[in-house]
Amino acid sequence: MKCAQNGTMSPAPARGLTVLSLAMLAALSPVAAHAAPDSTAWDLLAGLTSEVGPRLAGSEGEARARVWAEARLKALGFSKVAIEPFPIRGYVRGKDEASMTTPIPFKLAVTALGYSGTTPDKGIEGEVVYFQTLDALKAAPAGSLTGKIAFIDHAMKRSQDGSGYGPYGQVRRAGPGIAAAKGAAGVVIRSIGTDSHRNPHTGGTNFPQGIKPIPAGAVSNPDADLIARIARSGKPIRLNLTLTGKTVDGLPSGNVIGDLPGRDPSLPPILLGCHLDSWDLGTGAIDDAAGCAIITAAALKAQEGGATLRTIRVLWAGSEEIGGFGGKAYADKHGEPHALAMESDFGAGKVWRVQFNMGDKALTDRIAVALSPMGIVRGSGKADGGTDVEPVIEKQKLAVVDLNQDGTYYFDLHHTPDDTLDKVDPADLAQNVAAWTEVLKIVANEAGPITAAP
Amino acid sequence: MKCAQNGTMSPAPARGLTVLSLAMLAALSPVAAHAAPDSTAWDLLAGLTSEVGPRLAGSEGEARARVWAEARLKALGFSKVAIEPFPIRGYVRGKDEASMTTPIPFKLAVTALGYSGTTPDKGIEGEVVYFQTLDALKAAPAGSLTGKIAFIDHAMKRSQDGSGYGPYGQVRRAGPGIAAAKGAAGVVIRSIGTDSHRNPHTGGTNFPQGIKPIPAGAVSNPDADLIARIARSGKPIRLNLTLTGKTVDGLPSGNVIGDLPGRDPSLPPILLGCHLDSWDLGTGAIDDAAGCAIITAAALKAQEGGATLRTIRVLWAGSEEIGGFGGKAYADKHGEPHALAMESDFGAGKVWRVQFNMGDKALTDRIAVALSPMGIVRGSGKADGGTDVEPVIEKQKLAVVDLNQDGTYYFDLHHTPDDTLDKVDPADLAQNVAAWTEVLKIVANEAGPITAAP
Repeated sequence: MKCAQNGTMSPAPARGLTVLSLAMLAALSPVAAHAAPDSTAWDLLAGLTSEVGPRLAGSEGEARARVWAEARLKALGFSKVAIEPFPIRGYVRGKDEASMTTPIPFKLAVTALGYSGTTPDKGIEGEVVYFQTLDALKAAPAGSLTGKIAFIDHAMKRSQDGSGYGPYGQVRRAGPGIAAAKGAAGVVIRSIGTDSHRNPHTGGTNFPQGIKPIPAGAVSNPDADLIARIARSGKPIRLNLTLTGKTVDGLPSGNVIGDLPGRDPSLPPILLGCHLDSWDLGTGAIDDAAGCAIITAAALKAQEGGATLRTIRVLWAGSEEIGGFGGKAYADKHGEPHALAMESDFGAGKVWRVQFNMGDKALTDRIAVALSPMGIVRGSGKADGGTDVEPVIEKQKLAVVDLNQDGTYYFDLHHTPDDTLDKVDPADLAQNVAAWTEVLKIVANEAGPITAAP
Repeated sequence: MKCAQNGTMSPAPARGLTVLSLAMLAALSPVAAHAAPDSTAWDLLAGLTSEVGPRLAGSEGEARARVWAEARLKALGFSKVAIEPFPIRGYVRGKDEASMTTPIPFKLAVTALGYSGTTPDKGIEGEVVYFQTLDALKAAPAGSLTGKIAFIDHAMKRSQDGSGYGPYGQVRRAGPGIAAAKGAAGVVIRSIGTDSHRNPHTGGTNFPQGIKPIPAGAVSNPDADLIARIARSGKPIRLNLTLTGKTVDGLPSGNVIGDLPGRDPSLPPILLGCHLDSWDLGTGAIDDAAGCAIITAAALKAQEGGATLRTIRVLWAGSEEIGGFGGKAYADKHGEPHALAMESDFGAGKVWRVQFNMGDKALTDRIAVALSPMGIVRGSGKADGGTDVEPVIEKQKLAVVDLNQDGTYYFDLHHTPDDTLDKVDPADLAQNVAAWTEVLKIVANEAGPITAAP
């Protein structure tokens, strides 16, 4: 573990998981493990997590983050730096507590899900109905959950490309609404995560139109293991659930944007996205301070030898987590043409694959060749950017390059109290910056039209 | 990862840390990784953690554990099973909360230390004085901390033999008393642990005679990293600390003992120790349900072919964590001669080394030879048993065999909410049982006198 070159915010020694994953990754890819730290990226990451902290969409923390981001982007030499405000329907966290009361007393590690219903201060108590899968819950008869607390288990496993989050994430996104529709008084899910620590994974949920939100929480995986073991033994389980947070309309949010002007201002810019907001349990290091650090440091690096032909714009979006509001606001406000969009929002693991949505095969070949010395393979899937740039991609049919990060350990930390600075390996962060820089040097200097695949 | 042979409580799939450490251990010792699961040990471990749960010394949970242990030992065929009660000065946990208020608002992951002083319900607020080491705190002038909150950092690293816990554990054991003597209103330490998760490590502390206890808590390592980064930046830090737990005299505790009678009742028994109590944040899987599971399963296995010559006694001690009260109570009550004592209280990592305190070199050679096919090396240090058997060892000058477990990851979990069943690898647990069984087959069948080293 090396230290950042800038002395003011040198990385703390990595511990625990990071040490182990480093050891394993080193065994798998010894070359990539030797990238030099990038001080710009590390300083942004350390600053946002240590000088701002948690940045829940619509919160005072997110507001401070916008002010911080504006100042930092200006200090780094970006022009046309602007905060672009918009209001959101947000979730204001309250007291999150849950305890098993039967068959044994046990205080559970729980978090409310975003847009959860609200319990009284004393909580609600009820019998648990155990569902091994979301499908099992769907199969429960209407009304069968009246007055009860549904517990939804599941079996998400780790994967490099994070592909488990689509299907298993539905437990969180849709499960509470389904339980509510069947009359449940509350719902608790196994965290959507691949770790085994007493840190629950939060995240947004949604209740369908006409369904009154019910209190909805996630317990950590070890807590879910205990519930599952007791459920399998056949003993009745009762929980007390206290989730006093509230959904509130009209909270202030906003995007922060900044440009590094290109030599030809008439050419549509390259748009790089990340999100400034974070869940509030940790300090949002991997989700997504790392993304903002990577895109911003790479944009600067791509211009180190002089301005690129095209302008590079960074979009540090607000309120991604709770509904992708920042990306929508950007697309609505910015009707001017863009050339291509990219996003970094999958942690700080090394880039291992590149994928495209691009009409010009020769251009994709040049990018793939430039990345090949880093061990980055070319995938056959279609690039889709990320939540913060998808609306403008959709609207303008933009070309996209995805630099896929190794997500093997991403869902160990995602949306947990454990998403903190110590989890980022400076060498991994630097490898991301280097890969992004390679891509930007090509696309931001491309004179001809850059188009999406037909 | 294999499953336990008994179907009722099969081990949950290992995740996160366990998966990684398994992978690394497999690389280091491929042979030992293939031990078959031991269903007796696993059932005891799963039962104590899932059917009883947390077992804080002096608590209702510890009382239920004694009843559970008595029933289990009887069901397993132990005779003279008895609960031996004693009262203790205990710590009753209250509300544990801490927040940074300056320079940024941040809710810290905190736990009170055992015997901490008590704050008002609204907590105390104060300026933080940062000490990088315990020595730095010791060097602070008398009275210099008046009204302030001392923060004690440190730099414990992981080690296979856990040797960092002696010196760095002093930060927890002695640090609060030193801060109190210098006038501090409260004290917060970096957790005594080697992980980097938002799970604080609790444990007992001690205030010297005549020093009024002050509120004393430990924050998780990532929280300590944040405090240290901000302290290095020179910004003032203020914390709010709410620790409402109380020290209470006369709480009920007790030991549970049981015998597997030997063929010659006139010979002094072999005493095997573990502790039944646990810290209350997790379910005490590695500390020390695993130890009780290992010694008990091994005692039974040693008698599978028929009773051993000597009686084997298990001591499931109470109130180890808060002051080693169970071991003292046992030594006071049991003046009858013992032959030899051993203890398992260092998690569930594989046994890698054997050490002795024994007068008969030939006997130690036979044990070392029996263990050598398992890759267990002979150490040159002197065996000392463990907290629960040390008082009787001291009093009776007993021979001791130590089966040292791999503690590389032990202090990732020790005294945290994360000490739960999923952290135990069934194959590691089985390897422990197998090693203990080898030793017991020799020492419990030794007819001649078994003596300590001179």
